[in-house]
Amino acid sequence: MMSRSFWGWGADGSGVTPAEQTMLEARVAPLVGSELSWQQSPEIGQISLPATRATLPDSLAELLTATPTDRASHTYGKSFRDIVRGLAGDFSAAPDLVAYPATEADITRILDWASEVDAILVPYGGGSSVVGGVETPVEVRGDRPVISLDMSRLSGVLEVDRHSRAARIAAGTYGPALEAELRPLGLTLRHYPQSFEFSTLGGWLATRSGGHFATLHTHLDDFVESIRAITPTGEWESRRLPGSGAGPSPDRILLGSEGTLGVITEAWMRVQDRPHFRSSFVGRFTSFSGACNAARLLAQSGLWPQNCRVLDALEAFVNGFGDGSSHLLLVAFESAHLSVSHVSQAAVEIVRHAGGYVDSGAGQGGERPDRSRFEGNDRSTPADDAERWRDSFLRAPYLRDGLLRLGLISETFETAITWDRFDEFVEGVRAATIAALLAEGCGPTPILSCRLTHVYPDGAAPYFTVIAPGRPGVERLKQWQAVKDAAMDAIALLGGTVTHHHAVGRDHRRGYDQQAPATFIRGIRAMKKELDPTGMLNPGVLFNC
Amino acid sequence: MMSRSFWGWGADGSGVTPAEQTMLEARVAPLVGSELSWQQSPEIGQISLPATRATLPDSLAELLTATPTDRASHTYGKSFRDIVRGLAGDFSAAPDLVAYPATEADITRILDWASEVDAILVPYGGGSSVVGGVETPVEVRGDRPVISLDMSRLSGVLEVDRHSRAARIAAGTYGPALEAELRPLGLTLRHYPQSFEFSTLGGWLATRSGGHFATLHTHLDDFVESIRAITPTGEWESRRLPGSGAGPSPDRILLGSEGTLGVITEAWMRVQDRPHFRSSFVGRFTSFSGACNAARLLAQSGLWPQNCRVLDALEAFVNGFGDGSSHLLLVAFESAHLSVSHVSQAAVEIVRHAGGYVDSGAGQGGERPDRSRFEGNDRSTPADDAERWRDSFLRAPYLRDGLLRLGLISETFETAITWDRFDEFVEGVRAATIAALLAEGCGPTPILSCRLTHVYPDGAAPYFTVIAPGRPGVERLKQWQAVKDAAMDAIALLGGTVTHHHAVGRDHRRGYDQQAPATFIRGIRAMKKELDPTGMLNPGVLFNC
Repeated sequence: MMSRSFWGWGADGSGVTPAEQTMLEARVAPLVGSELSWQQSPEIGQISLPATRATLPDSLAELLTATPTDRASHTYGKSFRDIVRGLAGDFSAAPDLVAYPATEADITRILDWASEVDAILVPYGGGSSVVGGVETPVEVRGDRPVISLDMSRLSGVLEVDRHSRAARIAAGTYGPALEAELRPLGLTLRHYPQSFEFSTLGGWLATRSGGHFATLHTHLDDFVESIRAITPTGEWESRRLPGSGAGPSPDRILLGSEGTLGVITEAWMRVQDRPHFRSSFVGRFTSFSGACNAARLLAQSGLWPQNCRVLDALEAFVNGFGDGSSHLLLVAFESAHLSVSHVSQAAVEIVRHAGGYVDSGAGQGGERPDRSRFEGNDRSTPADDAERWRDSFLRAPYLRDGLLRLGLISETFETAITWDRFDEFVEGVRAATIAALLAEGCGPTPILSCRLTHVYPDGAAPYFTVIAPGRPGVERLKQWQAVKDAAMDAIALLGGTVTHHHAVGRDHRRGYDQQAPATFIRGIRAMKKELDPTGMLNPGVLFNC
Repeated sequence: MMSRSFWGWGADGSGVTPAEQTMLEARVAPLVGSELSWQQSPEIGQISLPATRATLPDSLAELLTATPTDRASHTYGKSFRDIVRGLAGDFSAAPDLVAYPATEADITRILDWASEVDAILVPYGGGSSVVGGVETPVEVRGDRPVISLDMSRLSGVLEVDRHSRAARIAAGTYGPALEAELRPLGLTLRHYPQSFEFSTLGGWLATRSGGHFATLHTHLDDFVESIRAITPTGEWESRRLPGSGAGPSPDRILLGSEGTLGVITEAWMRVQDRPHFRSSFVGRFTSFSGACNAARLLAQSGLWPQNCRVLDALEAFVNGFGDGSSHLLLVAFESAHLSVSHVSQAAVEIVRHAGGYVDSGAGQGGERPDRSRFEGNDRSTPADDAERWRDSFLRAPYLRDGLLRLGLISETFETAITWDRFDEFVEGVRAATIAALLAEGCGPTPILSCRLTHVYPDGAAPYFTVIAPGRPGVERLKQWQAVKDAAMDAIALLGGTVTHHHAVGRDHRRGYDQQAPATFIRGIRAMKKELDPTGMLNPGVLFNC
C-alpha cells in the first residue's frame, strides 16, 4: 500500500507540480486581485490529536492501531471542508482507533467488541468521500469511542467466471489493483470514478458510485450480481443471479446504504471484455443549451455511446479545451468485438442535425488497442480529446488542493433533473449559487462552470464547479456552508436530486431530508434498528438512528 | 371495463375456440391414452361462497361490494391451482368484500377503516397472478375480514412529458388502455408481459414484471422514474428523477414488494418513441445448448437485441414452429429513428459463427410500420415468425385453461442462472421435475419443454412448461404441489432464483425462504411493521408478518 497524504488528495508527494503551481497562479491571480501566497501543507508531527478514548483490547491488538498517522488520515474524507480543516491542523474529529481487519471473521470480532463497548464504527474504503461520509463529528459521537474500519486488507479479485464475464472481488480492492488483476484475463470492470486511484469497490457500492459510462449503465448498481456484507446481527449474502424478480432486490438496499446497514465485504461483479474498437468525436456548439439538447437526442437514440459528456465553454476552457468560445459535446463509442464506425457515424449525424459543428471525417473510428490512461498504460500516440479529458479529470483533485492552499473556495456539486425542467433548473441553480457567492463576499467574479457527466433518455446529471476567493483560513468554511446550503435548497426546490453519484453522507443531509419519502426513511430506520440495534454503524449518515 | 371470467383466463366468452379444442384434443390424446372429456366451466349461480364476515360500513358503501361475481372473481389469481379450484367450484377463500376506490383519498379511507376493524387488505391489479399473490387462504385470515382492493378505477395516462419521454400513469391502468392512450402521441411503454391484456401497471410494478425486451431492460424496474404509494401510515412518493445516488433507491423497495408495504397508486414511467425500423431472423440449431450459447454471445456482444429468445425443439413444435427437429433462436432489433440492418447483420454473423443456420438474406431489416399484435392492430402483411410467436404467446393462457378442463396438469415455472452453471442447472431442474412427475403418476411421457425468455451478459432466464396427465378433479392439486416442490427445491439447490419475473406470492415462499438473505428478511419485516403496524397488507406474501 502506497503512503497516502493524511490531509489531502492522493499519494504522499503527488501534490501540485511546480508547473501546475505556475498555471494555477496565472489563472487565479485575476480572480483574487491580491498577492497570492501558498498555505503550507501540515506535517503530521505538528498537529494535535484528541486523546484516544478507547482501550485497545488485547484480543484485537493485532487489528487495531492508534498511531497519529492512522488516526489523522482516517479523520476526514476529501471534501473542501475536510481539506481546509486538515490544512488548519484541525483533527478534533479523529477516530479513537483504526481497525485493519484481514478477514470477515476479524470484522465480526470487531463488531462484537464494538457492541460490547457501545462504540461507533465507520466503514472506510479509500476515504475519498466528498460528503462527510467517513467522519463522525464530535457532537454525534458524544462519549462513544469511534473506530474507523479500514477495509484495505480485504483486497483482491477472488474468483473469475470467464464464461459469464463476472468476478468476485473483495470490497477493499482499490481501482488500479482491481483492473491490474483483471487485465491479464482480457477483462475490465471499466468503472472509473474521479476517485478511481484512491477508492475501493466497497466504497463504490456503498455510495452508488457513478463511473465511466455516460449513458445506459451510469451507476455501478447495474454491474452488481450479488453482495456479501456483515451486519452487527449477522451475515447478509444475496444469491449470484443475472436477474431476479423475487421480492425487492436485497442488493439495492445495500447499494447506497453508505455503511449504515452493514459492512460490505465482497461482491460478484459483471465485468467486460476489454474494448478494441473505438471511435470518438467532438461536437462544438454556440450555446450550452444546444449542446445539452444534442446530448438528449443521443441519449434517446438507442445508440448508447460510452461517453456523451457536455462541457460548457468555461469548463472546457478551464480544462484546456479550446478558447472558451464553444460549448463541447464529447462523444465516444467502444466495443470489444464489433466495429463502432457505423454507430459513431449515426451519432455524428444526430449532433450535426442538432446544430453542432463536427470536423469532417470525425467519428470514423477504427481498431485501437486498449490503452486507458486510468491504468497508467504507456502511450506512444498523441492524446486525443477523450484522453486529454481523462488526464485533466484525474489531476483535478490535486489542483483543487492547490486552489485551497491559495486561499480559494473550490467546490463541486452534482445533481440530476428530467429534460422538461432542464434549462430552467440549471439556470435556477446557477443563479442561486452565484447570488450566495456574492452575498458571502466571494466576488466580484466567482467562477461557476457546468458539465453534464451522465445523460439519460429522460434527463441528465449536471455537475457544477465553483471557484471563488474566500476569507482567510477556516473562515472560508462559513462562506462555503452558506453557498452549499443555497445550492442544495435551489436543487431541492427546483426538483433535482441532492446527489447523482457523490452520495449523501453528512454534508447532503439538508437536501436529502427534503427529498427522501418520509415513509421510506421511517421504514429504513426500522430496518437499521433491527440489523444494528446499538446504532454502531455510521450514525447520522443518511438518517438519524 | 369488459366482463371478465370469474374462474379462468381473460374476458367472458374468450375461452378456447372450437378449432383450438380440436387441436388440443389431437395433441393431448396420445399423452393421456384414454378418452378425453371436457370439464364444464362453472357458472356463477352454481358456486357457493362463504358468508361475508364484514359489515359494509355506510360511509364506504359506494366503494365496497359483496356481490357473488365480485367476490368470486377476486378470490384467486390465474395459476394452475386457481383454475382447478375454480373449475371445482371451490371459492372458500373468497374475500368478504371487494373495494373499488376511485381516488387516493378513497384508498386512505379504506385503509383507515381496515385498521379500525383489523381487516386484511389485498391490493388487486388485474388478478393475473400465477403465484398466489392475491389470495388470502383461510388459515392466514383467521377471524379477520378480507377486502380485495381492486385498483381498476384509478386508470389512465395522467400526464405526458414528451420532451423527456415520460408519462405519469395511474396504477390501475390495464396494458391495452395504457398503450391506446400513448399511441396517438407516438409513444409506447413497450411492456408486454404474457398477461398484458389482463394486468395493470401497478401489478407489474409490485411484481417486478418482465416484458418485451429480452436483453438490457428485461424487467419493468429500469423504466421507473418515480412511484407514488399509500401505506397504512402515510403517503410514499419518490422524486421524479432520471438517475440518483441519494441513498438506497426508494423505488426499488416498492418494486417487488407485492402489496405488502403499500398500495401503489401511480408512477412516472419512461416511455419510448414507437419503433419504425425493424429486423428479425431465426437461427436454427441442432442442440439446445448450442442455441443458448449463441444467445450468450449475443447478450455479451453489446448489440442489445430487443428479442433474443431460445425455444427448445419441443417448445418450438408445440407453438407451431417447424417439425420439432431444430432448436430455435429468435432475434429481433427495432428502433424508432435508425436503421437496424447493420446491427442485425452483425447478429447474424455471431449466430452463424456459433453454429446456427440462418437463411441467406435474413436479418436485412428495413422500415416497417409499428403494428404490434399486442395492441390488436390491423395487419395487411403476412405474419412473420416474431408475430406468430406473439400470437401463440397471447393465446397460451386460454389453451392452458383448455388443458385443465381436459384433466391435465399444466404449469410453467421460470428462473435465472449464470452461464457458468447453465447447462448443468437446466439438466438438473429438468431431471428433478421429470422424476417428480413420474413419481406422482403423471407418466408415462410427460411433456417438459424449455425456452429462454430473457438473456443477460452473465446468464439467462430459463422458462419451463410442464404438460402431463393428472388424476381426476382436485386430486391433481396434490400431484401439482409435489412436482412444484421438487422443481423449486432443485432450483434452490442448484443456485437459481425461485422466480425471474412471475413473483413470489404464496406459491414460491418455499424457494424464496431458501434464497433471500435472512438478515434482509428481518430488515424488511421491521420496515413493514413500521409502515403497516396491524399487518393489513397481503400478510404472508413474501414473508410472515
